[in-house]
Amino acid sequence: MSKAKNAYQIDKEIETVYSHLSSHPDVKKGLAYLEADQTNTLHEQIELAEISAPPFQEETRARAFMKKLEELGLEEVQQDSEGNVFGRLRGERKGPTLFVSAHIDSVFSMETDVTVTEKDGIYYGPGITDDARGLAALLSIVRAFSHSGLKPEADIIFGGTVGEEGPGDLRGVKAFFNEHPEVEGFISIDAVSPTAIVYKGTGSYRYEITYTGPGGHSFGAFGTPSAVHAAGRAISAISDLNPPVDPKTTFNVGVVQGGTIPTAIAEEAKLYIDIRSNGKKELDQLDSRIQVILQEAAEMENRKTGQYGDAGIRVDINKLGDRPVGVQDDQARVVQTAWAATEQLGLVPTLEDALSTDANLPISIGVPALTLGAGGDGGGYHSLDEWFDPTNAHLGPQRVFLTILGLSGIAKTTLPLLPEK
Amino acid sequence: MSKAKNAYQIDKEIETVYSHLSSHPDVKKGLAYLEADQTNTLHEQIELAEISAPPFQEETRARAFMKKLEELGLEEVQQDSEGNVFGRLRGERKGPTLFVSAHIDSVFSMETDVTVTEKDGIYYGPGITDDARGLAALLSIVRAFSHSGLKPEADIIFGGTVGEEGPGDLRGVKAFFNEHPEVEGFISIDAVSPTAIVYKGTGSYRYEITYTGPGGHSFGAFGTPSAVHAAGRAISAISDLNPPVDPKTTFNVGVVQGGTIPTAIAEEAKLYIDIRSNGKKELDQLDSRIQVILQEAAEMENRKTGQYGDAGIRVDINKLGDRPVGVQDDQARVVQTAWAATEQLGLVPTLEDALSTDANLPISIGVPALTLGAGGDGGGYHSLDEWFDPTNAHLGPQRVFLTILGLSGIAKTTLPLLPEK
Repeated sequence: MSKAKNAYQIDKEIETVYSHLSSHPDVKKGLAYLEADQTNTLHEQIELAEISAPPFQEETRARAFMKKLEELGLEEVQQDSEGNVFGRLRGERKGPTLFVSAHIDSVFSMETDVTVTEKDGIYYGPGITDDARGLAALLSIVRAFSHSGLKPEADIIFGGTVGEEGPGDLRGVKAFFNEHPEVEGFISIDAVSPTAIVYKGTGSYRYEITYTGPGGHSFGAFGTPSAVHAAGRAISAISDLNPPVDPKTTFNVGVVQGGTIPTAIAEEAKLYIDIRSNGKKELDQLDSRIQVILQEAAEMENRKTGQYGDAGIRVDINKLGDRPVGVQDDQARVVQTAWAATEQLGLVPTLEDALSTDANLPISIGVPALTLGAGGDGGGYHSLDEWFDPTNAHLGPQRVFLTILGLSGIAKTTLPLLPEK
Repeated sequence: MSKAKNAYQIDKEIETVYSHLSSHPDVKKGLAYLEADQTNTLHEQIELAEISAPPFQEETRARAFMKKLEELGLEEVQQDSEGNVFGRLRGERKGPTLFVSAHIDSVFSMETDVTVTEKDGIYYGPGITDDARGLAALLSIVRAFSHSGLKPEADIIFGGTVGEEGPGDLRGVKAFFNEHPEVEGFISIDAVSPTAIVYKGTGSYRYEITYTGPGGHSFGAFGTPSAVHAAGRAISAISDLNPPVDPKTTFNVGVVQGGTIPTAIAEEAKLYIDIRSNGKKELDQLDSRIQVILQEAAEMENRKTGQYGDAGIRVDINKLGDRPVGVQDDQARVVQTAWAATEQLGLVPTLEDALSTDANLPISIGVPALTLGAGGDGGGYHSLDEWFDPTNAHLGPQRVFLTILGLSGIAKTTLPLLPEK
């Protein structure tokens, strides 16, 4: 789902910066280091993948990652109250500050065996790629700064976020940007591609809906409104919706659970609904329509049975997830910068469709942000068969490194391309 | 939900029989025995209630009950292949043979503590009334025959049936009447009232419906038909049905379960549906309409998404329960006989609305049948709080005893009121 743009335009200023970078000896040293560091990076990736980090239980992996940030000599290494860990690479000046992170959490429970195994050069293990690879790539990049002697023009915060996956609802990145309004740019290192540029975020709302009613015997109390019947009315009406195709906007009643036995009129029924869009307005329009349907379903069941108030069906709506839509122009400076960095490695950049990553949040609040791959190849995400192929995996960290150098500048050499507020 | 009939008519022939019975010294002896046997009956009721007898696991209680039938001197005491136990009280002649039974099974699982406790004269225990009381009342009635010296004119089979409750689907009584086409009358001793006459059976069908589809990611695979959406469409259409009020006809989607997580398009969704009616035609009409809806729901979801065949939703319909409707005239001889028996005890008979009991089956195949109470008072049926109050409990067995004497006759004294085929 990527589109190659043959005629993608790079601003003169950005071209000039990358022309500097291409001939800068310390940049070459940094890139060479990242290639040489491949085995080390893979070992660190496996080490981190083998520490379980389910949503809301990231603490052990977070501590291990924080210790590594300290050992690499970052300043002000800390853990915030949400659980994020990060430290500062000081530049010539403070801003515009860039935050570079990978996410600490994986989707797997504490009970999942996260041992990594290797076969024919492919590494298998739940979470081996998503996002242990991102964490390891980030550490390698921090080392590349010290080995190359490169100092950024503006401060960079390197860290790991909690709560990127499902139930985490981006809690880490939300807390970080709430606490750090001074941060003016963001790169999430996630997935693997060294050419894809993710610059838009699919927004989503997730709901738990509970219908409740008085219940009763199927025959004796026939005419009593049913929580299952109300839930069915809601599902049916939602199923008939026709949200816009562009920007892509979707709904799904993923789970329904209601009632106890066939001969009892259900007292309770629950729905779990996921709605998504690449457009903010479209997401909210679909959301509003569904809110109306959810209420109407209870009203229809009550009207059919002539029961109201305590004798009728009530609906309770609990918002479980809120991932903001991230809309950014494909000609934004941050996108152009990643494009130029990709081309400098001799690779062909691609502008990706929207995904749901940590970058959604900063984009939604106007902070330029990207999600860039950590290198290598991978698949089976969120399944027990997740795998990682380290072939040419250094291209990931190299591209992120070059993008960071463009965005944050090199001390006394290039100015940060990251726009200041 | 009972209706007293002031002007209920009893045929002359039946009046004559009960006039004989009222002055018959052995009948008086039998009635006196049933009152004197109260404490013994209560002990036997507790003893049987404390033997777990879940549906399909009635064996231990069945064996204990069978041993008691043998000890009481019934002939040909046996267990059939379905698990029913019964024996014959021989009359002057074979037919018309009456089958008198209580049901052996209770709704409670093997894990349920079925210990009976007493407080202020009330007995508490899961299954203490439904139908341990019926079994005990039946044993007391068999004893009343031997203590009174009364011999019936026609054979009576006394026994216990398996599978009356929920999942049992009347399997015991179905098997019995399949094996015993010669039996021409039936009394089920169930519930407690010594005045209520249950002579109609509510029919019911029970279904497990499974919708299946290909599944996929809520956003990436949007446009894939959803098993939960199809199930919701079915529930919604069923909810809007308006079955007849008389004969009472009802539907209930009691349980719905579908999907795994909010972000996955559901691959499977199940519905559990209960439909009931006091009219055979009405039950089958509602059933036909629901069958169409169940298919249409899958078709609507497929049409909405433009996916068919293996890419679409399929529906599988599994019939879990089939209890036939029992329709009998309220002036049927068997009803008049129970009426006369009730009045002979100085009680006011009531004609009850249809229930779902073992009597459904014989009524549905044209065999005169009743469900009569076992005496005392009770409540909390099918709950852990079930209770039994033994006050004046002898009226139950006395009424059944008098009804049996009318239906089966007294040797060389009265002819059986039970119509011969």
